[in-house]
Amino acid sequence: MRLKLPITCFILEIILIILFGVLVEYDEDTDAKKFNKHFNTSMEHSDAENDFYYRYPSFQDVHVMIFIGFGFLMTFLQRYGFSSVGFNFLIAAFSLQWATLMQGFFHGMHGGKIHIGVESMINADFCTGSVLISFGAVLGKTSPVQLMIMAMFEVTLFSVNEFILLSILGTRDAGGSMTIHTFGAYFGLMVTRILYRPNLHKSKHRNGSVYHSDLFAMIGTIYLWMFWPSFNSAVTEHGDAQHRTAMNTYYSLAACTLSSYAMSSLTAHDGKLDMVHIQNAALAGGVAVGTAGEMMLTPFGSMIVGFLAGIISVLGFKYLSPILEEKLKIQDTCGVHNLHGMPGILGAIVGAVTASLATKEVYGNGLGRVFPDVADGREASYQGGIQAVSLAVTLGIALIGGLIVGFILKLPVFGAPHDTTCYEDSLYWEVSMMILMLMMVFKGEEKTAFTGFATENPLEVSLELDVLQACD
Amino acid sequence: MRLKLPITCFILEIILIILFGVLVEYDEDTDAKKFNKHFNTSMEHSDAENDFYYRYPSFQDVHVMIFIGFGFLMTFLQRYGFSSVGFNFLIAAFSLQWATLMQGFFHGMHGGKIHIGVESMINADFCTGSVLISFGAVLGKTSPVQLMIMAMFEVTLFSVNEFILLSILGTRDAGGSMTIHTFGAYFGLMVTRILYRPNLHKSKHRNGSVYHSDLFAMIGTIYLWMFWPSFNSAVTEHGDAQHRTAMNTYYSLAACTLSSYAMSSLTAHDGKLDMVHIQNAALAGGVAVGTAGEMMLTPFGSMIVGFLAGIISVLGFKYLSPILEEKLKIQDTCGVHNLHGMPGILGAIVGAVTASLATKEVYGNGLGRVFPDVADGREASYQGGIQAVSLAVTLGIALIGGLIVGFILKLPVFGAPHDTTCYEDSLYWEVSMMILMLMMVFKGEEKTAFTGFATENPLEVSLELDVLQACD
Amino acid sequence: MRLKLPITCFILEIILIILFGVLVEYDEDTDAKKFNKHFNTSMEHSDAENDFYYRYPSFQDVHVMIFIGFGFLMTFLQRYGFSSVGFNFLIAAFSLQWATLMQGFFHGMHGGKIHIGVESMINADFCTGSVLISFGAVLGKTSPVQLMIMAMFEVTLFSVNEFILLSILGTRDAGGSMTIHTFGAYFGLMVTRILYRPNLHKSKHRNGSVYHSDLFAMIGTIYLWMFWPSFNSAVTEHGDAQHRTAMNTYYSLAACTLSSYAMSSLTAHDGKLDMVHIQNAALAGGVAVGTAGEMMLTPFGSMIVGFLAGIISVLGFKYLSPILEEKLKIQDTCGVHNLHGMPGILGAIVGAVTASLATKEVYGNGLGRVFPDVADGREASYQGGIQAVSLAVTLGIALIGGLIVGFILKLPVFGAPHDTTCYEDSLYWEVSMMILMLMMVFKGEEKTAFTGFATENPLEVSLELDVLQACD
Repeated sequence: MRLKLPITCFILEIILIILFGVLVEYDEDTDAKKFNKHFNTSMEHSDAENDFYYRYPSFQDVHVMIFIGFGFLMTFLQRYGFSSVGFNFLIAAFSLQWATLMQGFFHGMHGGKIHIGVESMINADFCTGSVLISFGAVLGKTSPVQLMIMAMFEVTLFSVNEFILLSILGTRDAGGSMTIHTFGAYFGLMVTRILYRPNLHKSKHRNGSVYHSDLFAMIGTIYLWMFWPSFNSAVTEHGDAQHRTAMNTYYSLAACTLSSYAMSSLTAHDGKLDMVHIQNAALAGGVAVGTAGEMMLTPFGSMIVGFLAGIISVLGFKYLSPILEEKLKIQDTCGVHNLHGMPGILGAIVGAVTASLATKEVYGNGLGRVFPDVADGREASYQGGIQAVSLAVTLGIALIGGLIVGFILKLPVFGAPHDTTCYEDSLYWEVSMMILMLMMVFKGEEKTAFTGFATENPLEVSLELDVLQACD
Repeated sequence: MRLKLPITCFILEIILIILFGVLVEYDEDTDAKKFNKHFNTSMEHSDAENDFYYRYPSFQDVHVMIFIGFGFLMTFLQRYGFSSVGFNFLIAAFSLQWATLMQGFFHGMHGGKIHIGVESMINADFCTGSVLISFGAVLGKTSPVQLMIMAMFEVTLFSVNEFILLSILGTRDAGGSMTIHTFGAYFGLMVTRILYRPNLHKSKHRNGSVYHSDLFAMIGTIYLWMFWPSFNSAVTEHGDAQHRTAMNTYYSLAACTLSSYAMSSLTAHDGKLDMVHIQNAALAGGVAVGTAGEMMLTPFGSMIVGFLAGIISVLGFKYLSPILEEKLKIQDTCGVHNLHGMPGILGAIVGAVTASLATKEVYGNGLGRVFPDVADGREASYQGGIQAVSLAVTLGIALIGGLIVGFILKLPVFGAPHDTTCYEDSLYWEVSMMILMLMMVFKGEEKTAFTGFATENPLEVSLELDVLQACD
Repeated sequence: MRLKLPITCFILEIILIILFGVLVEYDEDTDAKKFNKHFNTSMEHSDAENDFYYRYPSFQDVHVMIFIGFGFLMTFLQRYGFSSVGFNFLIAAFSLQWATLMQGFFHGMHGGKIHIGVESMINADFCTGSVLISFGAVLGKTSPVQLMIMAMFEVTLFSVNEFILLSILGTRDAGGSMTIHTFGAYFGLMVTRILYRPNLHKSKHRNGSVYHSDLFAMIGTIYLWMFWPSFNSAVTEHGDAQHRTAMNTYYSLAACTLSSYAMSSLTAHDGKLDMVHIQNAALAGGVAVGTAGEMMLTPFGSMIVGFLAGIISVLGFKYLSPILEEKLKIQDTCGVHNLHGMPGILGAIVGAVTASLATKEVYGNGLGRVFPDVADGREASYQGGIQAVSLAVTLGIALIGGLIVGFILKLPVFGAPHDTTCYEDSLYWEVSMMILMLMMVFKGEEKTAFTGFATENPLEVSLELDVLQACD
């Protein structure tokens, strides 16, 4: 780590800077000359029409989801909080730069240059979100260098998939049920499958939460929940489309929260709520209206979708995740399959159905702003078919991409942690003032570990034993 | 709890979905057809005039106050953090849906349909805020099922009161000093009075904070404080009214903070600041300009109001709350009487006085945008009288409503916790990996408890004793 | 403290209220009469042109940086969390009121009155930010009364410096590399130099973080990082300038994050990342584009600046801070020299160079909106010279001001803590329910302390010894 991480960061950043120098330009709304072309003369547009005012508040909400939302959601692990927030921060800062280039490259160059502004910033954050979903699947089991390499490849593949869907097929997916959530989840699941650790049980005692780590995680959850309406509406058309998308998402999430609580309690043997479900399943409603949110889904439709998403997600955590781990050897730390995978697929299906039902009668003159191809003559049912095909394409690229990238990450040069030191901050971080909290960890009736926040210090280990004797 | 909570959530959500299906429609600004009616033709309005751009940033600030602000403010309790954030989340998600229907029903149907958009979303969040204030009064002493039932009734009564004030009487109350704060506080105080627990002292050792729980609570406080300007201005008229309201609130809160710190230190025997005062009293300035904030109160007037609100609030915590508990048997966990009750009444009075002084000379053409009835011929002094009457109406409905709902909640079917298990997360939540933190709790000179985060496990209890021996 | 803090707060607030009553008026956009002058007649302007909609979202982001960002960034200390957030809250609430008056006084009165609106609110928050930077330098070593006195003087001097730069010299400094960061840092460093404590090592065991306090600090870091684009763009011209500034800052911060991680790992003996670097250095990129961010710096240029800022900042923490402390007797608790001082100077230099290269060819009609003086005939190279002179002026006023204020704060009437009780909350706060967490603190191989969260209780101290025996 002494040299690998610095070298990786420096090389990647220097490459980024050079490519930005060669390829990137201000767009019409960020360039002083272009935007003020008509200033003082015909006043063709006013300052208020700068895209900044339509999208910057949404951008900042998305930004909070990426850095606080994802970052703190993953702090639920008892001694991986520094890495959860810190590596989230690092790979997000890298990914958003790399995504600017990749998405700019694919979404159309302007005379050999990539033009950027607030919309490209949102899209870069979106792509970053997909990487962070995959991070959730491998959380605690990868070195920061592995994460940087994964981010580099995943951003690239994300941009390819997004290009195929949005530019070639004409798919609608404003909130990214497919491009962001399904892609990120299945890519990450495949990577974690390839990186399967048969002896991960040796770190099992750290793969869980403590009281305050769960409260930190709730900060992440609540921010994701609150700002998801901004996420889904951030790059839709101006006006009614942004407005409607935000509102549909708001109601979907509310319904999802109630069904998540209900299912969490119902599936527990004693009716108690499980923090894991609340932290994750209550968000599935945002994922599941990612595609259809901009459409005339109605709050009624949104609530049904959110309601189902919450149920599916809790069932996934309760019954499917253990099977995935035991049978398919998929060790999915954060359960991204339940929060992003299945709800993403649900969202894609809902989007396909809703698109296939689009009519001029319902959308009026707004039809062309939601479905430009349908307004130009494409059949609505064909648009629905395209949406369904897009899901298959996304799954294919995600799984094949994850397969390849997983094998790359297996190369023994990236400093992966041992099976005994997963979910452990002190591998990567100076925990400069170590604290031995004398604590006993119980799970049910069985005492599984006597633990402190630091284990490397020999003094400490002997002390643990001493105290154990003092206590027994 | 095994079945009661799931059944409650499922039934309520299914009813909500059905009612949304029957009653709710997109409004002019969220419907693709209606909003784009003139698209490509006369361009009667532009995208920028969609109400989304006037109100959505304020909405998101309000949303943060509801879910992060209220949620984390209540995490100050040492082992009720999951329930504080988690039940806040649940009842808010329910209330905002139910409020959409109730407020839509009362505020005028459009051809039998409820039209919704960003303004109705803000109003739904406002109504939810009122429920969360009442939650603060009963915090730690009610089951989630009780809370859902309380929310259901309170949202209904809130909407009735709001309808009487805003639609029948023509009261002005943009920031809800009366409709939200006074109503929520006195409703909750009456409920907690009816639910009086003579043996609550059995859970007293958990009715207090620990170091980090107070820091989590400060997250709630600071977010409420920062975004209160958005709260008070969220549904005022566009333009100067939103701008002025936000600014008046900003200065009221700043003045309130200084007087809260001063009073907290002044009333302590050793001059030390009390976290409870800082977490709550510093916010009273926002409550107290809830009604008059949109008026020409001036920053000067706002600061006087905030200054007084901080003083009143700290005095309430210090001297009135103990009396309420001992004499009137009102066990007000969060001290909502001091943060929302008295400052709400102060706000109502300030609003009445300010309204009665409104003149065309001061407001110019803006008079009709703040006081439509006064611009239409109503005397300003009469408007002031109406404002005062509205306070009385609000107090009446809140107290009678709280009385009835309190008795309903007393029915022995909702799974209320025992007197010995109040303020305890492990009743409702899987604390999946239990931790016994060997800690001693002191209050003054007296050792009141040897405590860990979990007490149900017999192994643990014996261990506590062992260690106590080891330590003595 | 019993009387000093209340008296200070009450007197200052009453003076503020009186001065607001005499001097402050609503501006054109917050006054009901003035804004609606043409309402219903010629409609000279629409509601959407109210400055509120251009700046309020940015204001709220800045507000979050001031109260959550700065407040939580400083909670890294193990038992100074209440004071970090709480004193940050107090002095910020005071400073923003005082800054409104001081900045209004210097930036031009309107007929003897100070006109206020959202832009003045942002500027007041900016000035407050400068005070909070200085607070970081003296953190843990000053009483709240000292902090209030420091804030009073610093706000005044800040306003003088800002007036000289912006109004007299015509300097451009939208994001405050000079006016906010350089000024706040060097003012604070000089104050802490004057307040030098030779026996501060007696409180050394509390001058460090614990696990969860570092996670709280990351909340502050991430919020500062996310919203810095709003900070730098909050008071630039409408339209392209706000848009461009936000974008330049976004890329500068992203690049800075990668270089900070790289340097943190590279300079550690075992390659481990240091939370102090991540919490601070990763933000230096925002400081360093504070001046040039609104100019046509390009994302490419911004990334180079951010990249360098991260490197400089980590090197400062690693090698310069120990020298400053040992040789120059500057005890800089938060390392503000590394986050605000050096990056601020870098930002001033980058701004001077970028300004000197401004041409009509690059800026087009936008030249006058970024450099009004250059558009009016001033040479760009002269503007660059002015920018450089401004840095010198800022450093001069900050250092001389800090010298004088430092000596004032040394007067033995403000209740400064003893050398043995620095970094300790229980001096100023009721820690009402004290908890002795039985914990051992290690630093490397050496056991430095056996500690709990409270030390005043004699019972506790004896208990500590008992347990030490039980454990040894």
